[in-house]
Amino acid sequence: MNKLRGILLPTTTPFTDSEELDLNALADNIRKWRAAGISGFVMLGSTGERVHLEESEYLRTLEVARREIPSDGAFIAGVGQQSTRGTIAEIAKAVQCGADAVLVLTPHYYRAAITQEALVSHYTAVADASRVHVLLYSMPALTGIKIEPETTARLSEHPNIMGVKDSSNDVAGFAATVKLCPPEFAVLTGNGTVLLDTLRAGATGAILAVGCVVPRMCVEIFDAFNRGDEERASHLQAKLTPLAAAVTTRFGIGGLKAALDLADYRGGAVRAPLRAPDEAAGAEIATLLEAARAAL
Amino acid sequence: MNKLRGILLPTTTPFTDSEELDLNALADNIRKWRAAGISGFVMLGSTGERVHLEESEYLRTLEVARREIPSDGAFIAGVGQQSTRGTIAEIAKAVQCGADAVLVLTPHYYRAAITQEALVSHYTAVADASRVHVLLYSMPALTGIKIEPETTARLSEHPNIMGVKDSSNDVAGFAATVKLCPPEFAVLTGNGTVLLDTLRAGATGAILAVGCVVPRMCVEIFDAFNRGDEERASHLQAKLTPLAAAVTTRFGIGGLKAALDLADYRGGAVRAPLRAPDEAAGAEIATLLEAARAAL
Amino acid sequence: MNKLRGILLPTTTPFTDSEELDLNALADNIRKWRAAGISGFVMLGSTGERVHLEESEYLRTLEVARREIPSDGAFIAGVGQQSTRGTIAEIAKAVQCGADAVLVLTPHYYRAAITQEALVSHYTAVADASRVHVLLYSMPALTGIKIEPETTARLSEHPNIMGVKDSSNDVAGFAATVKLCPPEFAVLTGNGTVLLDTLRAGATGAILAVGCVVPRMCVEIFDAFNRGDEERASHLQAKLTPLAAAVTTRFGIGGLKAALDLADYRGGAVRAPLRAPDEAAGAEIATLLEAARAAL
Amino acid sequence: MNKLRGILLPTTTPFTDSEELDLNALADNIRKWRAAGISGFVMLGSTGERVHLEESEYLRTLEVARREIPSDGAFIAGVGQQSTRGTIAEIAKAVQCGADAVLVLTPHYYRAAITQEALVSHYTAVADASRVHVLLYSMPALTGIKIEPETTARLSEHPNIMGVKDSSNDVAGFAATVKLCPPEFAVLTGNGTVLLDTLRAGATGAILAVGCVVPRMCVEIFDAFNRGDEERASHLQAKLTPLAAAVTTRFGIGGLKAALDLADYRGGAVRAPLRAPDEAAGAEIATLLEAARAAL
Repeated sequence: MNKLRGILLPTTTPFTDSEELDLNALADNIRKWRAAGISGFVMLGSTGERVHLEESEYLRTLEVARREIPSDGAFIAGVGQQSTRGTIAEIAKAVQCGADAVLVLTPHYYRAAITQEALVSHYTAVADASRVHVLLYSMPALTGIKIEPETTARLSEHPNIMGVKDSSNDVAGFAATVKLCPPEFAVLTGNGTVLLDTLRAGATGAILAVGCVVPRMCVEIFDAFNRGDEERASHLQAKLTPLAAAVTTRFGIGGLKAALDLADYRGGAVRAPLRAPDEAAGAEIATLLEAARAAL
Repeated sequence: MNKLRGILLPTTTPFTDSEELDLNALADNIRKWRAAGISGFVMLGSTGERVHLEESEYLRTLEVARREIPSDGAFIAGVGQQSTRGTIAEIAKAVQCGADAVLVLTPHYYRAAITQEALVSHYTAVADASRVHVLLYSMPALTGIKIEPETTARLSEHPNIMGVKDSSNDVAGFAATVKLCPPEFAVLTGNGTVLLDTLRAGATGAILAVGCVVPRMCVEIFDAFNRGDEERASHLQAKLTPLAAAVTTRFGIGGLKAALDLADYRGGAVRAPLRAPDEAAGAEIATLLEAARAAL
Repeated sequence: MNKLRGILLPTTTPFTDSEELDLNALADNIRKWRAAGISGFVMLGSTGERVHLEESEYLRTLEVARREIPSDGAFIAGVGQQSTRGTIAEIAKAVQCGADAVLVLTPHYYRAAITQEALVSHYTAVADASRVHVLLYSMPALTGIKIEPETTARLSEHPNIMGVKDSSNDVAGFAATVKLCPPEFAVLTGNGTVLLDTLRAGATGAILAVGCVVPRMCVEIFDAFNRGDEERASHLQAKLTPLAAAVTTRFGIGGLKAALDLADYRGGAVRAPLRAPDEAAGAEIATLLEAARAAL
Repeated sequence: MNKLRGILLPTTTPFTDSEELDLNALADNIRKWRAAGISGFVMLGSTGERVHLEESEYLRTLEVARREIPSDGAFIAGVGQQSTRGTIAEIAKAVQCGADAVLVLTPHYYRAAITQEALVSHYTAVADASRVHVLLYSMPALTGIKIEPETTARLSEHPNIMGVKDSSNDVAGFAATVKLCPPEFAVLTGNGTVLLDTLRAGATGAILAVGCVVPRMCVEIFDAFNRGDEERASHLQAKLTPLAAAVTTRFGIGGLKAALDLADYRGGAVRAPLRAPDEAAGAEIATLLEAARAAL
């Protein structure tokens, strides 16, 4: 459980220019992130282009990542098929590759059918079957499905559900979730744009795509907040927010990978139909990155 | 090309009560649908719960369906991964199982990145690589992505793209698409609620989930329209519309399968988290089905 | 159990000239074989080039065959990986495709380790785990491993092991097996060259590659023997023996497929490195086939 | 090419007591072997229980091994399906996991069909299609198929075939192969029992299972021979021979893994139906290992 405190990274999956998996680049990145103070990783969630990988690529990626992450760090695999049984089967494979917890995306394709009641049934069945802890994943910007605070509260009673990653960008809903769940239940934000706001609302930690680019900055916001240095935290958050927006909602994974290349990580290519950002977007990312670094 | 005229069915995939694949039931259904005058089938699109099947189940289903459909009928496989390369690989496997064309869903997971420009690149690459004809598939209710008329028009120039299934429920957009595309390009509706409207707008045919339940009725609307019997067509459409809404947007695939069971087809179970309709919904479906049949 | 009486066929797997799977040809063959009085089939054993198929091809082939074979006929899937756990996993998949029993080849790659004791452990674990009945398969010409009569006798006590296919060409060993096993245990020969000899020794039936070419002839030998017409049985066996040798040990699966083409079945290509027989071999097969047919 | 000089190891694949893949143990072993002076590895050949792994386990194992072996070391993947097309497909996957060459076992299941002529066709097609260098693999004790010296000589002309691993234990045949092939063609022995004999016959190197247990001893024999110290080489070979026999032909992979455990490597379990050696065999292995070490 303590593994879910602080800043975790939802890692990208590097590809070569011909869109082949580049696991050496991933391993390099993980080593650098660890050197920057990051101990927890979520592999192959939305940021990791899970949906762009064949199953054998997915398993090879988990295997390699597992070997770069020491056993005292969190190694969480992103999973989430549309059917309950498919999700259960996928978790079993991720566990074989060493995942010590899973981040389970909501089903969403038949979205009209995915009521809060359906989510309770789905996650209960998944958590019953999983040999490792389950983390709920609410990502309405991509899926159109939100896990409501009351739903999270109901699911938090399941002994195998240990927390939620809330990427809704909705601070009020986040605060409600924290209030409704038991204190040992981990409520993490997935939006770098509201990191400080959610910490104030009671977040135990965060899983941040922008953290891949500026890991120390995210850690420092978390630490400053915890030692009561609101001024420092606010100052950094002001610079983090526009960068976080740029590498997520505005320019997507192409933007995030471009930022990684600028920050001396190995970003690499995205798989089509995703694209690298155009020149103007690239220049803006560079400016925002420089500003963020200067603040640190 | 002529295979794309008239009424085609997007078949459901039957499961047993324990959610196992029931290919005998599928074969029974296909024989009945053929006896009802249907010659074209789209397997494993949205209606076929493609996203609920493992890859080997997907291939086995295509294989069995292919064997029930004579070579003069249309046998179209639903495909569509999130990445361009994944989609190309999936098409190659569907072709090995005998698909003579593919219905290619838009990528949609990273929806902000799926611009009309990205769709042009994606479908062009897919059509270049596919050994069989490609049919575009615009299904905004599930994906959040619409293929605009101008985009369809650009893609209609590709020699390997033969048509589009438009499930947008937008008759004006449908009419615009027909006008912008060459006459030999097939523009089919996927919405039974607007079948007659789209025929008036120039549809060459339709791929209708409600057609699985009342195939003769859909065929008769198509035929009545073509022989100029607007009155008959309108009379039937009035009864088709509420049934079509019930077995698609209102009660989803659970509703459609319940309707199939009522209509002496083999509906069977859905895979969780989907559910069968509750009693009230079931009663309503029964009423609408009876009314539709009485009109025919 | 009664399904294991009489003549069963170990079917070939047809390929096109480019070595692609040709399941239409397989379905045609099965229909013809059924019309010739065959009700039991063993799919994808040695004769079926199991080792030349990818897993998805294996599953698709089982699925198609299952649909051509009525439920009162025997539908037995050939299985047999080198490890016990791999064999158990393979059986589970074959059962999903409708197999109502499995023919389990001995492990053999690490042949020095495959003692009779190891076979007892292996088959016991496999039979414990299998949801369908298990048939042992002793095929020393290909594997170098023979299941000895005493071993078969020990395994015949397992409630889920229903019989053995003995392709050792060793009539004395066959007779010993029959004597040592309980009467309800099925002992079948896999060698057409000794069909009549093994019937005399107590065979309940046979699984014969040569039966794919001359099914009626094999059935007639079985029937003649059972009605006490030794003369007819001997007369036919004399013609069957050289043909059986030609399409198995002498010219292999290439020879068998060539004979099928000559006999108006769909033989098709073999996958490399196997080859079609050369001209002289082809001529000899034709002569032997004609002689066999003339005798019938 | 120079990577094929000296002693290479055909690594074992460690399993836990419940027969699950243990890739941490494999990585530990590789690090130790490298510290002992070994720079080349053949993964997942016969010694690596390739036939006991599912495809995804095979790929994960290659991926992990690749990461432990520096790019100046040889990283050769064991491959070899029964069909030519299956072998070609398998090589493509191994290359994706980073193999820089492949050791291709002879097809053997339909052994009567695997003539020397068939081997020439098979290996030529495989080498034409492979993106990395091909090493022939003659292992008659397991396969019943031997690649004759003349056949190797014909294949040595193919620009993509760089050598042969000859595990026939036949020194005269080995010498004939060396004479018939061009000097830059690598002829390696796979039998520790005849290491020195084959070096005298012109071996460029060796791929030795016993080398997993006593890597320094094998390297020292190679080095002593090359610096002309026949006495030292002979002295060590005398102790290596009985140990090599014990961990290969006599007690198999179970014996080899037991020896690894004794030698402070991570042997681990074998997958059933293989077994660990019994107590007497274990004691004998310990004695032979001690004697070998004392000689060094």
